[in-house]
Amino acid sequence: MLRIEAIGASDGIRIGRAFRLDEPEAAASAPWASEGAAAREPLDEAAELRRLERARDCSAEQLAALAEKARAELGDDKAAILAGQRGFLSDPAFYPPIAKRVREEGRSAEEAVRDVVEALAAKFEALGSAYMRERAADVRDVGKRLLGALRGGADDAAGGPAGLAALREPAILVAADLSPSETVQLDKRRVLAFVTRTGGKTSHTAILSRSLGIPAVVGAGEPLDAVRTGDTLIVDGAAGVCLVRPDEATIRAYKARLAAELDRLAAERESRFRPAASADGRRVEIGANIGSAADAETAADSGADGVGLFRTEFLFMQADRLPDEDEQYRAYREAAERMGGRPVVIRTMDIGGDKALPYLRLPEEANPFLGYRAIRIGLDREEWLRVQLRAIARASAHGTVKALFPMISGLGEWRRAKRLLEEEHARLRDEGHPVAERIEAGIMVEVPSAALLADRFAREVDFFSIGTNDLVQYTLAVDRMNEKVAPLYDYFHPAVLQLVRRVIDASHACGKWTGMCGGMAGDPLAAPLLLGFGLDEWSMEAGAIPKVKAALSRLDSGRCRELADRAVALDTPEEVRAELERFVRVGGGE
Amino acid sequence: MLRIEAIGASDGIRIGRAFRLDEPEAAASAPWASEGAAAREPLDEAAELRRLERARDCSAEQLAALAEKARAELGDDKAAILAGQRGFLSDPAFYPPIAKRVREEGRSAEEAVRDVVEALAAKFEALGSAYMRERAADVRDVGKRLLGALRGGADDAAGGPAGLAALREPAILVAADLSPSETVQLDKRRVLAFVTRTGGKTSHTAILSRSLGIPAVVGAGEPLDAVRTGDTLIVDGAAGVCLVRPDEATIRAYKARLAAELDRLAAERESRFRPAASADGRRVEIGANIGSAADAETAADSGADGVGLFRTEFLFMQADRLPDEDEQYRAYREAAERMGGRPVVIRTMDIGGDKALPYLRLPEEANPFLGYRAIRIGLDREEWLRVQLRAIARASAHGTVKALFPMISGLGEWRRAKRLLEEEHARLRDEGHPVAERIEAGIMVEVPSAALLADRFAREVDFFSIGTNDLVQYTLAVDRMNEKVAPLYDYFHPAVLQLVRRVIDASHACGKWTGMCGGMAGDPLAAPLLLGFGLDEWSMEAGAIPKVKAALSRLDSGRCRELADRAVALDTPEEVRAELERFVRVGGGE
Repeated sequence: MLRIEAIGASDGIRIGRAFRLDEPEAAASAPWASEGAAAREPLDEAAELRRLERARDCSAEQLAALAEKARAELGDDKAAILAGQRGFLSDPAFYPPIAKRVREEGRSAEEAVRDVVEALAAKFEALGSAYMRERAADVRDVGKRLLGALRGGADDAAGGPAGLAALREPAILVAADLSPSETVQLDKRRVLAFVTRTGGKTSHTAILSRSLGIPAVVGAGEPLDAVRTGDTLIVDGAAGVCLVRPDEATIRAYKARLAAELDRLAAERESRFRPAASADGRRVEIGANIGSAADAETAADSGADGVGLFRTEFLFMQADRLPDEDEQYRAYREAAERMGGRPVVIRTMDIGGDKALPYLRLPEEANPFLGYRAIRIGLDREEWLRVQLRAIARASAHGTVKALFPMISGLGEWRRAKRLLEEEHARLRDEGHPVAERIEAGIMVEVPSAALLADRFAREVDFFSIGTNDLVQYTLAVDRMNEKVAPLYDYFHPAVLQLVRRVIDASHACGKWTGMCGGMAGDPLAAPLLLGFGLDEWSMEAGAIPKVKAALSRLDSGRCRELADRAVALDTPEEVRAELERFVRVGGGE
Repeated sequence: MLRIEAIGASDGIRIGRAFRLDEPEAAASAPWASEGAAAREPLDEAAELRRLERARDCSAEQLAALAEKARAELGDDKAAILAGQRGFLSDPAFYPPIAKRVREEGRSAEEAVRDVVEALAAKFEALGSAYMRERAADVRDVGKRLLGALRGGADDAAGGPAGLAALREPAILVAADLSPSETVQLDKRRVLAFVTRTGGKTSHTAILSRSLGIPAVVGAGEPLDAVRTGDTLIVDGAAGVCLVRPDEATIRAYKARLAAELDRLAAERESRFRPAASADGRRVEIGANIGSAADAETAADSGADGVGLFRTEFLFMQADRLPDEDEQYRAYREAAERMGGRPVVIRTMDIGGDKALPYLRLPEEANPFLGYRAIRIGLDREEWLRVQLRAIARASAHGTVKALFPMISGLGEWRRAKRLLEEEHARLRDEGHPVAERIEAGIMVEVPSAALLADRFAREVDFFSIGTNDLVQYTLAVDRMNEKVAPLYDYFHPAVLQLVRRVIDASHACGKWTGMCGGMAGDPLAAPLLLGFGLDEWSMEAGAIPKVKAALSRLDSGRCRELADRAVALDTPEEVRAELERFVRVGGGE
């Protein structure tokens, strides 16, 4: 038995046969070896340019379709990865140099793609950071797709891993690497899990595998070369372990663990429509985070009490221009209708930061997370925000719609945003549009200053929604996508807990409510703490709802309050985590 | 009289004759027009390469000398601008492409410099942000210097604005633009003020003009073309106004204002050695921020009670490799000795973020301010931090030396850093080195989480030093160098005030003290607030000490406490500012 210890990218235990995709060199070189070019007639530049353009348009369409699939199945932030790849196709540093080589240097389209992709990827890699390596991987992924489209292989052009067609029955995929666009197309019924030679915890591929619910171990390195197709493998995604040709006793032990895991999942899924409440009957709301109106269906089917966060960015990222009022209205209205009377919290566009819109040409920034983004853009380009607020207000006639403003750092911004909403609301009424009598409005608490002034905001807002992802980043000054400092990113840091509690207390003091829509809300380990703080609404990816509801149902709210008091008084995130694990281990109130 | 309203880059009123430097096109084209190249013999690549290398080395030396001058006179962060220009000379995207053009394409050194500089600058500019425009300006500045060195003009090669030699008596400079390296060489005795056509408030040139104390108005645009050499001008840097050919009444009015300003400055300077205290006798410490041992002299001469912040980065940025223990020891010892027994707070290296060290090859990061920097590097590369801590400990034998750790976000980091200091301190004693019995150690409070946990840190640290520049950036999620969001950056934000007060209160509850070394400490308008909060030590650029001491001497500490209570309860930075201005206007306790 060979034991490979690597990086756990996506949790879960799977036992199955290995299926090797081509080795890295072979796989990578195949699409690059442009067998046709040398043998072809002297090139007709104009015809070659047309081929290139067709390949580009075809690739753009494929990526749009993949992004749409990812959005529907995995959420909009995952779709953004593929939308970002599509963005490369219109990036001035990408396509124009390719076209230029064809037009002015008489190169074949394949040669031109190959040269530019390699040069660009090498440039990104030379910068040495994990972030830039991701961009290099994305560029190569797009390059492969373009070459596929040039070959005219409409079948494999959709971008599934080449060679996977040969996979006849469920297996564990073993590969040098999987690109994001390959990963997003993996079929959970055929791919039990995957193990790759390269990759890290924050790579796009790792993020996608978690969303797909496919257990994965990455960064396995050389030892993986010893695995042959047909070998029995055990993948333990949580532990980051891959066991090759395990003995019978080991298989038995893992089979028992797997069975228990599946039983638990089935039980959680079974009871997902029960109201969310603690063992002693304290009710809370569980909302879903969605990225499109279609997602509202999945949300409802997962047991959501409403939509805690409608991320409207995707509506903007999907298009080639800003969607107009009617387009936005239709999307918001559809979400409201699909949720019946249940609340739908619509966040105004949170673009900028790491979410670029190619057609807006936002400035390149030294620190985009501390830059021109979200409400800062909205208040600067007031006309865009007004269009969105009108669309939200019009949708309010068709359900329970609330408006949520992102990245608020001070009362001035909130008051301006709120005034715009009121003005557009009043104007619509004057124009004879049906609108709700009143539209609740709240702010995202993700900038530390908003949490610190929660007592003042609480007098004016209808609700708060704590976005832990950004709040933690700013409170600890850590970009969580930066692997050099990612270990410092921890929402169990006592300073973060202090801010969370403070916001909840401030809202209750004014008879308002607080929701949470960051990653912390979907973590069952955080549930006792948040229940203890008195959090009113929890919003998360639909897939996480059953397990959080199950976790809540085992808790006693009184004991959670005591736990919360103990936790905020601790010194370090490690101590908080240990305290929570102890609490859950001893039964947390059962 | 023509009134030009533009951007105030550096405060102060000046009245004088205009002196026009060449027009932008003429000035820019002169050094680029390589008259020699065409007429020269066919190029000998090897000889041409040697010319280029000599020019590079000569430019590097010039920039090192300029950086040293800037550091001594303006502080290390200004010197960093020139050190950054020097960095371009060893940047793989800069010099190697130039050399390649000479070596492989047979271009003249001048042509190669011109091509690469223009391509690189255009690339930066295409990115559209203020930050990138600054980099473009820097690249062009370096290009001009290289061409000057190639021309062999040793006289003007130091980089003063061409044409300034013709300036015989003090005047107000009028120019299309001034590069950072030109600005740093302006002689205050000859240049009363300057007005430029282009530029913004956060440009390097603007920052340098403030440090030099030369009033400046930038971004004046086309109207400035109407100004001729010899015209009478009035520059009001605070208002961002330039008056051309003013009438007599206006001149009289401004002369009176100027005289009052000069009287005030003289009086402040006169009384700079008086102990810093409020009108009712509350004593505080005023320290200086320094970047080198030599600065300690200036600090003492400005009336500093000690060094509140020794920024050791410059020691690292100046060199081509990490300075060893002895080099660091000599610098810290010299500073301690120059300050006599007065305290010298030495901050361990705060590199990363916007302070790169070319020889360390730090990773390129998506958000460097939220990345791998300061103590995060120190604890990751423990061996470097240990060397620095040994040097600090050895210097403790020669004065009152304290150690300060930057970017602490949690107790774990502080405890590790503190343990390293204790270990090296003990080891030095064991090795027989003379060291102080005890070395006080504190943390920078610049990450919001450190401020939020101040009560816990206060039990363990000897002191706090609040770094408002970063604390404000993180608390408000605003990169202050990003002009798209810079208006949101404000240390009078009530959330920031809350954190500042909290840190001071926490330190006092444990019998510890709190200092402040960010820009807020040097702002006389903030003085009543900080006195009201009970701040113990204020550290600033030496030049600001007289005016802050003067402001303090007019305050009543009891009334400032009431003011501070009122201010933290306000909603917005604008309200706080208005309250402070009202307080100062009515006399602030006098």
